[in-house]
Amino acid sequence: MNVNVLLFDRFETLDAMGPVEMLARPADYSVGFFSLDGGIVTSFQNVPVMTKPVSDMDRTGALLLPGGWGVRDIDHDQEFLSTLKGLCDDAAWVMSVCNGSVLLGACGALDGRKATSNKKLFQDALDSSDAVEWVEQARWVVDGKFYTASGVSAGIDMALGFLNDRLGREVAEEAATATEYLWNDDPTDDPFCKFQFT
Amino acid sequence: MNVNVLLFDRFETLDAMGPVEMLARPADYSVGFFSLDGGIVTSFQNVPVMTKPVSDMDRTGALLLPGGWGVRDIDHDQEFLSTLKGLCDDAAWVMSVCNGSVLLGACGALDGRKATSNKKLFQDALDSSDAVEWVEQARWVVDGKFYTASGVSAGIDMALGFLNDRLGREVAEEAATATEYLWNDDPTDDPFCKFQFT
Repeated sequence: MNVNVLLFDRFETLDAMGPVEMLARPADYSVGFFSLDGGIVTSFQNVPVMTKPVSDMDRTGALLLPGGWGVRDIDHDQEFLSTLKGLCDDAAWVMSVCNGSVLLGACGALDGRKATSNKKLFQDALDSSDAVEWVEQARWVVDGKFYTASGVSAGIDMALGFLNDRLGREVAEEAATATEYLWNDDPTDDPFCKFQFT
Repeated sequence: MNVNVLLFDRFETLDAMGPVEMLARPADYSVGFFSLDGGIVTSFQNVPVMTKPVSDMDRTGALLLPGGWGVRDIDHDQEFLSTLKGLCDDAAWVMSVCNGSVLLGACGALDGRKATSNKKLFQDALDSSDAVEWVEQARWVVDGKFYTASGVSAGIDMALGFLNDRLGREVAEEAATATEYLWNDDPTDDPFCKFQFT
């Protein structure tokens, strides 16, 4: 399966790289990095990642969308949002981390769906779309082909949940053990919900 | 403080990017990516990162060394190891993740020090140097200016430990909360030690 990671300037590093660590493990999963026009895209933490243009993407498989402060630069960018909506329509699976779901909400991909987002920026999610059922207390939410994670590190747990759902519990647990990661495996257990709106 | 991340082909993504997520948070910490000759360096999970050559590095501050399967390509490379030894001598702090400590052992930087490494590849650490006191049961180990973490995800916990030691508990906890990360904050609590040599 293709795992197509869509980057934009000032994305949050771990939002993308945490899930990538886990999703690259199955032998038939292949990770690639893309941006609207290709070239170097730099995260908020100053990680410069080489990307291919979206026009080069094989749109089958899974789309992975990080969040980050850069979301606020593009959450009203119609070129980005319409491209994103097309990618979501074509993908078999769509995953977002943190306030990446704000972009999914803004482009209309989540209309009529349940979804979650970063707990400290939850108002941004609520503001992005009133056609989405935003779930405040969730480590991650699955609705159809859409997986949305809470803030940053929650993306790792969601990615392991995705492996669990596609390939079984053993594969997910092996990925966690191999990376010495203590998997928070209950999507409804959200220890950070209490920090919301602080 | 500079956080100079030294990359090599087939490094493990989360070994580098987990700590980077945390170490980039303090306003006066600045992350940069380097490799022996500069240019694109690609992780084992297929993340292409643009690096500067080591010759461009301001060697003050902290050096961060990931591990990964690529370690086995360079753990007898005298050019790499002598460069690494020089970087360790000049750095105020040296952090390694996973089997990155095999390279620190092989270059002699850890002589007379305590250190740890990935639990599934622990024999590689033992083989790299008998002048190091290798600690099997540890999430991470601190000895002088050297911080060595166990496998992959343990690097995130170590990085938070580094922030705790330099800037105080509140800064470390704020970094964990902001990234919705459940910090395993006890360096002696190693739930993955039991998987060693399996």
